[in-house]
Amino acid sequence: MPRVVQKYGGSSVADAARIRHVAKRVAARAERGDDVVAVVSAMGDTTDELIALAQGVTEQPQPREMDVLLSTGEVVSSTLLSMALHDLGRSAVSLSGAQAGIRTDAVYGRARIAAIDTTRLERELAAQRVVIVAGFQGASADFDVTTLGRGGSDTTAVALAVALDAGDCEIYTDVAGVYTADPRICPRARPLHDISYDEMLELASTGARVMHSRAVEVGALYDMEIRVASSFDESAPGTLIHRETTMEQASKVRGIAHQNRIAKVTVRGVPDRPGIAARVFEPLADANISIDTIVQNASVEELTDLTFTVDRADLEGAVRLVEGTMLEMGAREVVSDADLGSVSIVGGGLATSPGYAALMFRTLYKHEINIELISTSEIRISCIVRAAQVTDAVRALHDAFELDRED
Amino acid sequence: MPRVVQKYGGSSVADAARIRHVAKRVAARAERGDDVVAVVSAMGDTTDELIALAQGVTEQPQPREMDVLLSTGEVVSSTLLSMALHDLGRSAVSLSGAQAGIRTDAVYGRARIAAIDTTRLERELAAQRVVIVAGFQGASADFDVTTLGRGGSDTTAVALAVALDAGDCEIYTDVAGVYTADPRICPRARPLHDISYDEMLELASTGARVMHSRAVEVGALYDMEIRVASSFDESAPGTLIHRETTMEQASKVRGIAHQNRIAKVTVRGVPDRPGIAARVFEPLADANISIDTIVQNASVEELTDLTFTVDRADLEGAVRLVEGTMLEMGAREVVSDADLGSVSIVGGGLATSPGYAALMFRTLYKHEINIELISTSEIRISCIVRAAQVTDAVRALHDAFELDRED
Repeated sequence: MPRVVQKYGGSSVADAARIRHVAKRVAARAERGDDVVAVVSAMGDTTDELIALAQGVTEQPQPREMDVLLSTGEVVSSTLLSMALHDLGRSAVSLSGAQAGIRTDAVYGRARIAAIDTTRLERELAAQRVVIVAGFQGASADFDVTTLGRGGSDTTAVALAVALDAGDCEIYTDVAGVYTADPRICPRARPLHDISYDEMLELASTGARVMHSRAVEVGALYDMEIRVASSFDESAPGTLIHRETTMEQASKVRGIAHQNRIAKVTVRGVPDRPGIAARVFEPLADANISIDTIVQNASVEELTDLTFTVDRADLEGAVRLVEGTMLEMGAREVVSDADLGSVSIVGGGLATSPGYAALMFRTLYKHEINIELISTSEIRISCIVRAAQVTDAVRALHDAFELDRED
Repeated sequence: MPRVVQKYGGSSVADAARIRHVAKRVAARAERGDDVVAVVSAMGDTTDELIALAQGVTEQPQPREMDVLLSTGEVVSSTLLSMALHDLGRSAVSLSGAQAGIRTDAVYGRARIAAIDTTRLERELAAQRVVIVAGFQGASADFDVTTLGRGGSDTTAVALAVALDAGDCEIYTDVAGVYTADPRICPRARPLHDISYDEMLELASTGARVMHSRAVEVGALYDMEIRVASSFDESAPGTLIHRETTMEQASKVRGIAHQNRIAKVTVRGVPDRPGIAARVFEPLADANISIDTIVQNASVEELTDLTFTVDRADLEGAVRLVEGTMLEMGAREVVSDADLGSVSIVGGGLATSPGYAALMFRTLYKHEINIELISTSEIRISCIVRAAQVTDAVRALHDAFELDRED
């Protein structure tokens, strides 16, 4: 029997009317005779409300308890969707992440799926039930509830699709797919027909938050094709995330990603000795501060400048840690800048097509946008710019690379 | 090590400030070196809000899903109390009913506890943690979430106290204990020093909803003494529910219970044959309509009148079912009255002290309160009266039996 795993995001189940709408879609798919597993996020702003509840009680919510608390949001929406299916005369059952057999490590707040025991899922599917799984959560070996981090329901869906050997994995959201740029700031952005896992990862990690990165990683690892589409507009085909884009698109800019809220830390006059980078970055890693771009200048008189970027929220902590280690190592000073953003072009084969980088830099220059830092990967070129200029940069690059044209 | 199970009701954990207050009380008890297990209800009106959410999706929420949905309310409050304890520097862990080892049958909405596997609880207590258990819930053999019915957190607490062999079982609520009558309608009511399990059961089942009846039944079965006290006023000692009241109180009216919203159904001209009662009441039992008082008049010419009372909400269904069976059996008519209530005197040994019944009837007569039906048990005499006269009846009986005097 064909199998599909569908995922419905928080805005798709934000109220009773939307839940009934989703139930109709799920029931229609089951009507075709397919095994249907639907993964749901928490309703609308539930997760934020639960966080606020915890913060009312304590400034430092204990991570284990926070996970249990947050997991209730998805449990609630899963029961409501199951009830709505029953109301349509369709047999359904809601399962928590733990009941769905999703086993994770015990890293609260960002647990990783270790294995999926599909016994219960298979039993429910065999009984002709639609299975509604509470997304974003699993259980540790100790049967304590864990959560997979913001957007984790996407990962739940893709991992379940892999574990259940589903033919289709469909992520339904409030936008029409993966766009060439964020349509909220770039009016000419349009949904892509398809995109490769790697390109999607670059887009996701540099700000196009249509999908959880780890969901894409799981898809890439197991070669599970993922369709991202709108839960509101059934006519739009959405975007297929898969292994390869077609040959003609193999070397082409596919999208423009951006990020706001980037901060830059520069350590000046660092003694250029082996082990210095470790001394800088290990304390940051221990404090769970993630580093994006790192640039080290050429050494002058055995002193070098080390620059890196962090999320703006982590700036204060990063500076404090770096000052602690670096000034005692003899570095001259630690300076920072909190008002930055990034803009990136993403596409297969960019690294081997130097013309793209040139066009990117020329376009930014023409719009009087100064580049503070540059970083590149195989399929991405990112420029750190002033936060206030990010929107202009996205629009200018979208035009320059003619992304409003159909594939 | 001395062990205590405490239960905090919904109004005691209604907001962040109250949760922090409860955390202080729990921490203070743990400070004394006791093993502490705290059972919590859902915050304030959470359960009603969750019910409304389900009713927005469907008029007939599926019972299994409803239980999962409702169980999240207690999970939320348990995590918040655990966080508040961590904030006070006290090690704590929240457990769902399933995690706490509470195994029930699979009768959703009013599951009964089958057994408690204390492995996890003992492990957490041995690790010097305060254990916060989400009340009102358990898990079926299939590890599906079940709920114990409204007020079920009391039953959770008493059952855990029994399973853990706790020295103390304390139910904290928003009133100062078990009152001689409902203080909201009887200003002279006062908290009782102690009361027997049986008396408490009669009070609970006839309207004094301080505690879940099944919690008292479990207490009686295992001889677990239960203290009911206020979570707000620490100076008040509350009421001890235990096997025997002291000898002097053994034959004395202890309290006045009342109920509003009672309806009466009378079937006139029922052929007086064996099996008639079963024909009337079996369909009602199947429809989950509970019957209180039943009165059958003496037979005249092999015809009898059968009268029973139900909750007002069940009246329509009861009449429909009874008409279905009775009119076909040849009964003359089914009439009903929806505007009734009850008032009861409760106390050990009432059955053997006829003076109490006489004083009750005389008092009601003096206040021009007509008695529609009378029912009695070993320790209770109940009169069905007009709903509008219930308050007057309670006050008059409270005065007549001098319940404002100290024990």
